[in-house]
Amino acid sequence: MAKDSFYLGIDLGATSVKAGVVSADKDDKKLLSTVAVPTAQRNRQDVLDAIIHSARQAVEQSHLALPDITAVCVASPGPIDLETQVICDSPNIEDWQNVPLGKILSDALGRPTVLENDANAAALGEFHLGAGRSATVMALFTLGSGIGGGVVIDGQVLHGAHGFAAELGHVIVVPDGRLCGCGQHGCAEAYASANSTIARATEALDAGRASSLAQVLRDNTQLTAKDVADHARRGDPLAEEILDGSAYYLALLSLNVRAVVDPQMVVLGGGMSHAGDILLTAVRKHFKRLNWHLQGADRCRIELAVLGNDAGMIGAAMAAAKIT
Amino acid sequence: MAKDSFYLGIDLGATSVKAGVVSADKDDKKLLSTVAVPTAQRNRQDVLDAIIHSARQAVEQSHLALPDITAVCVASPGPIDLETQVICDSPNIEDWQNVPLGKILSDALGRPTVLENDANAAALGEFHLGAGRSATVMALFTLGSGIGGGVVIDGQVLHGAHGFAAELGHVIVVPDGRLCGCGQHGCAEAYASANSTIARATEALDAGRASSLAQVLRDNTQLTAKDVADHARRGDPLAEEILDGSAYYLALLSLNVRAVVDPQMVVLGGGMSHAGDILLTAVRKHFKRLNWHLQGADRCRIELAVLGNDAGMIGAAMAAAKIT
Repeated sequence: MAKDSFYLGIDLGATSVKAGVVSADKDDKKLLSTVAVPTAQRNRQDVLDAIIHSARQAVEQSHLALPDITAVCVASPGPIDLETQVICDSPNIEDWQNVPLGKILSDALGRPTVLENDANAAALGEFHLGAGRSATVMALFTLGSGIGGGVVIDGQVLHGAHGFAAELGHVIVVPDGRLCGCGQHGCAEAYASANSTIARATEALDAGRASSLAQVLRDNTQLTAKDVADHARRGDPLAEEILDGSAYYLALLSLNVRAVVDPQMVVLGGGMSHAGDILLTAVRKHFKRLNWHLQGADRCRIELAVLGNDAGMIGAAMAAAKIT
Repeated sequence: MAKDSFYLGIDLGATSVKAGVVSADKDDKKLLSTVAVPTAQRNRQDVLDAIIHSARQAVEQSHLALPDITAVCVASPGPIDLETQVICDSPNIEDWQNVPLGKILSDALGRPTVLENDANAAALGEFHLGAGRSATVMALFTLGSGIGGGVVIDGQVLHGAHGFAAELGHVIVVPDGRLCGCGQHGCAEAYASANSTIARATEALDAGRASSLAQVLRDNTQLTAKDVADHARRGDPLAEEILDGSAYYLALLSLNVRAVVDPQMVVLGGGMSHAGDILLTAVRKHFKRLNWHLQGADRCRIELAVLGNDAGMIGAAMAAAKIT
């Protein structure tokens, strides 16, 4: 990375596209602009237009022109073929199979463009500008409807042999446990994601457990992970038990990730991490209780993400910096 | 690695020291010599003498002299401080705490010397000259009294932030399961190592289960993992069940390692892998059954190690090649 290099990061989210420019030299990295463009239609042309529009706006907002941008990266959910820079599929955009997005954007913007998995990008963002700034090895869990994961080692995203590394939500924590969307049983995602936390709470209510959450379920017909955290914070025993369960499975996941990649830090990100201290404290408690008794056992820390929804966009910019 | 470079690998085993010279250029790697020196006394001086003696003999057997050796690496069990190149401790050598073995040997042999964890070295050996030659990302389990692990990514050992990466035997496969020597509950090592396989078989016999293993236990007062595999091969139902259990837990471990590092190949090494096809087939069966339904799920293969007891020594030589 040369001094005064500018990188454009684009995050392809579920309801909008976010773009931002990061200025980066070896010692200093700064976010110069952030633009969010909603993608109401969620079809191919709408999303492509939003990406290009947000990209141009972010560059303009940074008082730069496209030729000032060294490289561009788009963080995208779903499987990406890193060799061909093609998005294989998307869970939530129409006609979005086998999209050669790298080529489409480098043609449209005139700058070298690469793709990165969104959770990997978020991990790279937290590593460079967020919770992991002091780490050399860091793992991130993005706790949303599922659990995404990213591992960064010495500034490099761990991609594995086929681009499927750091699928941390699919580490099995309960053998023959709850069915996961991936087809495995007992994945961390099937217990500790926002959706699974809600499912476990709803099942307990359906089974007749008393809880202040019962009224919320009656009023809103469904719960949110925020409901569970809020009611746990207010001392509802069932909500506490459900959230503590999520924390327990996240601690098991953290221990397993630690055993494989030995990070200084496991970072909890994504929507459910907004539960904040009540979740963090519980994950740390279980991690400590379940941890091995070897020298240095306490050298792996659990922390909350700090970049919020900007992590993927910032990390995409940092991934763009890798290609130059 | 320049053409015609020679590297000396030394493997500090439980009853002997093995040393060998590997010639390596970019395309061709060959083991030129192997020397094993028993370490009867297992105290510090005896082991140091054996290391230096085996090193000199291996070089001589290769028709080389020490100045021809580019670098040396010792594969050692137990914790190593990679920064200071000090062996922190050893489970089975007297007076072997905080040994600056890197410095001792580079002084004695006059060649640059580094240390590497023995399972990491074995993984590097299988990666370069063994089962993993076709892989870019490979994981190895060494199935012995415990379960060691090594992960190699693009020819580099995954060390993690504190040198504790790839402690694959301590991935938890059963929450709140059997107590492991590390203090955690439910580690793969507590179920699928040779010792744990024996323990599970012995417990079943003690609980009155009928088996042809009962006579072996009466005759020899204890079982071996080979007994369990042999009797499983002959169709004893309990032995089959116990070995299949070990395979099941190894499949869970393989899936979890796959989710984190996405290797092309998981290699089963160590003494218990000599059970051979009966174990391999069972691990593959469970892996396939428990695997996710995502595209490319079958791209991670399970294979047997091929270098036997030479893996650590050969891998140590390849680790020596990394420092030059």
